[in-house]
Amino acid sequence: MSGKGLEGVIAATTTLSLVDGNAGRLLYRGYAIGDLVAHATFEETAYLLWYGRLPDAGELARLRAQMADQRDLPESIQQIIQAHPMEADPMDVLRTTVSALGSIGDFTGPPSIQQVISLTAKIPTILAAFHRHRQGQPMPASRPDLSHTAHYLYLLNGAEPAPGHVRALDAYLVLTADHSMNASTFTARVIASTLSDLVSCVVGAIGALKGPLHGGAPAKVAEMLEAIGTADQAEPWLRAALERGDRIMGFGHRAYKTADPRSVALRKLADELSSAQDAAWLALAHHVEDVALRLLEEYKPGHRLYTNVEFYAAAVLRGVGLPADLYTPTFAASRTVGWTAHVLEQLRDNRLIRPAAEYIGPSDLVYPALAGRA
Amino acid sequence: MSGKGLEGVIAATTTLSLVDGNAGRLLYRGYAIGDLVAHATFEETAYLLWYGRLPDAGELARLRAQMADQRDLPESIQQIIQAHPMEADPMDVLRTTVSALGSIGDFTGPPSIQQVISLTAKIPTILAAFHRHRQGQPMPASRPDLSHTAHYLYLLNGAEPAPGHVRALDAYLVLTADHSMNASTFTARVIASTLSDLVSCVVGAIGALKGPLHGGAPAKVAEMLEAIGTADQAEPWLRAALERGDRIMGFGHRAYKTADPRSVALRKLADELSSAQDAAWLALAHHVEDVALRLLEEYKPGHRLYTNVEFYAAAVLRGVGLPADLYTPTFAASRTVGWTAHVLEQLRDNRLIRPAAEYIGPSDLVYPALAGRA
Repeated sequence: MSGKGLEGVIAATTTLSLVDGNAGRLLYRGYAIGDLVAHATFEETAYLLWYGRLPDAGELARLRAQMADQRDLPESIQQIIQAHPMEADPMDVLRTTVSALGSIGDFTGPPSIQQVISLTAKIPTILAAFHRHRQGQPMPASRPDLSHTAHYLYLLNGAEPAPGHVRALDAYLVLTADHSMNASTFTARVIASTLSDLVSCVVGAIGALKGPLHGGAPAKVAEMLEAIGTADQAEPWLRAALERGDRIMGFGHRAYKTADPRSVALRKLADELSSAQDAAWLALAHHVEDVALRLLEEYKPGHRLYTNVEFYAAAVLRGVGLPADLYTPTFAASRTVGWTAHVLEQLRDNRLIRPAAEYIGPSDLVYPALAGRA
Repeated sequence: MSGKGLEGVIAATTTLSLVDGNAGRLLYRGYAIGDLVAHATFEETAYLLWYGRLPDAGELARLRAQMADQRDLPESIQQIIQAHPMEADPMDVLRTTVSALGSIGDFTGPPSIQQVISLTAKIPTILAAFHRHRQGQPMPASRPDLSHTAHYLYLLNGAEPAPGHVRALDAYLVLTADHSMNASTFTARVIASTLSDLVSCVVGAIGALKGPLHGGAPAKVAEMLEAIGTADQAEPWLRAALERGDRIMGFGHRAYKTADPRSVALRKLADELSSAQDAAWLALAHHVEDVALRLLEEYKPGHRLYTNVEFYAAAVLRGVGLPADLYTPTFAASRTVGWTAHVLEQLRDNRLIRPAAEYIGPSDLVYPALAGRA
């Protein structure tokens, strides 16, 4: 058998992103993630990943207009969102609603760039529609003048967001838009390889991202900080967890053997975002990070476990006012860009992705007559 | 890079089924598929795949009772089905409705055998509920005395089905319940490996099965026979298709280098099922098979392309009265047993399935200031 979990097996070639785990480097289409997060908006990053190059000003304006135009949801999609109980996991609501777009929205036929743009534009609206529904609030009227990110915060809160919040969330969406062949992206490519439709690919990817070993952990970082509570509790709490053999949330990534460049950028964003009421929470996060890194080196020497993208993602998403159960769905909203870009790439030179299994069960058992079988 | 499409890469070990493509042999848990289709019902086959051994009479009776008890759908799930337009693809409806069970049904927490039984029991009800809805017919009252297969036909048609139809459809469900590591099963295992929930795994698998390179082709066999029309048109039609380089639907399978044992069994079932009004259609199918095999050997010598499971699946599913757009969803209804058994197997000794990609794009591009960027 190959490396368990297909570790090290090359499943596809890609020109989308390079994860260089030894150098702590992440490139989208050849551009360093640090440059992109400093200069490019989410829409510009999406254009880069989908079309393979940066847009000029006119192309970017057209994409922004297309996305603004595609944001609203058909009436029967809104009904499906409202059929969910208020306590539903927003990841489940997102998976079901995106799936429903497959038969109710305009998503028939082979995956196309028009479908990709429309789906990406609608995902924040789906999340906000469920959030407003569970809060018993109506959806505010669409504001086509707002950017993708600003509009998401506007729909969630029913008020125009602070520019600092828009900038921080936009940077988070840029940082998490693609990450080469992770489990959800691979899921999308496997589904695409059967020549299924775009919605099926994204729905499968959402299901994979929901798993706590993949995208389901940022809320758990916030829970851990909550459980630790105060700086003096950090060392005893983390030491007890490590003694039990628990995984410490927010540290370690199969791909990175040095600092994750996304964590570095998110830490800076979280610091810039910090308001008076968040300062204590963020100071605790910094302290827990320091203690965790020290203890991980003590308990797992040589494992090179660094702060991963989830640790400060929690700080940024909390800082812009998102409830914890929208952290992973918001990750899905950005990663939809990567998923869909990978689907389009897979279809450019497709072959069905169908690995083998090694059968290790019995052979040649003889079926016995079963007394009393109906 | 590994073989394209991960061909020949071992992604997992399994004790569920053995596909021996050179010998034309398929085993479930060590039992030959020919023995099972001759002796075992769908429920018994499901028990075998889920629990790893054949049930005794009491265990089988309990599983039948559990499945009968779990068939009905919650009211809000029925509303979601009815929110679909009548012309929706039943595969899309199935994907969305199974997804909705994740937040509306009782499917939270890690995948369990109780969830697996409940989900498998509900899938025929979902398909029938949509079929009745688009026909403007109410759902008939549940009949717990009927077997899983009989109940599916009963719900679809609103009348107790002929025993010959039940027997033939049950045999089809037995034959297609598992097939080692195909693309949809692999999708389910990748999603399961993130520790996501059962519904996410099955929803991803449905999306993969929808692709015409995987499960989306049996209806296309029926379309091909329709297009050919009469026996004398078979050779010119097929020859023209082969000259154009088209794939002939219902022939060839990556795994089999000899006759697929499922096709052999389905051909026999189709012949037994044939009624007076089907006789001409079935005679055409046999004739098209003979001509296609001869022409495939002429155009692709040495490729060893044999009649695959889809060719006579179309005949059997048509013979029991299913509309063509329910062929693939009915395949999903049986393969749910395999998908869920693979999910449970994956979780017994899990590691995140995360292959790598080879980056072949540019490096170190420098982000330019973009004039006019908003």
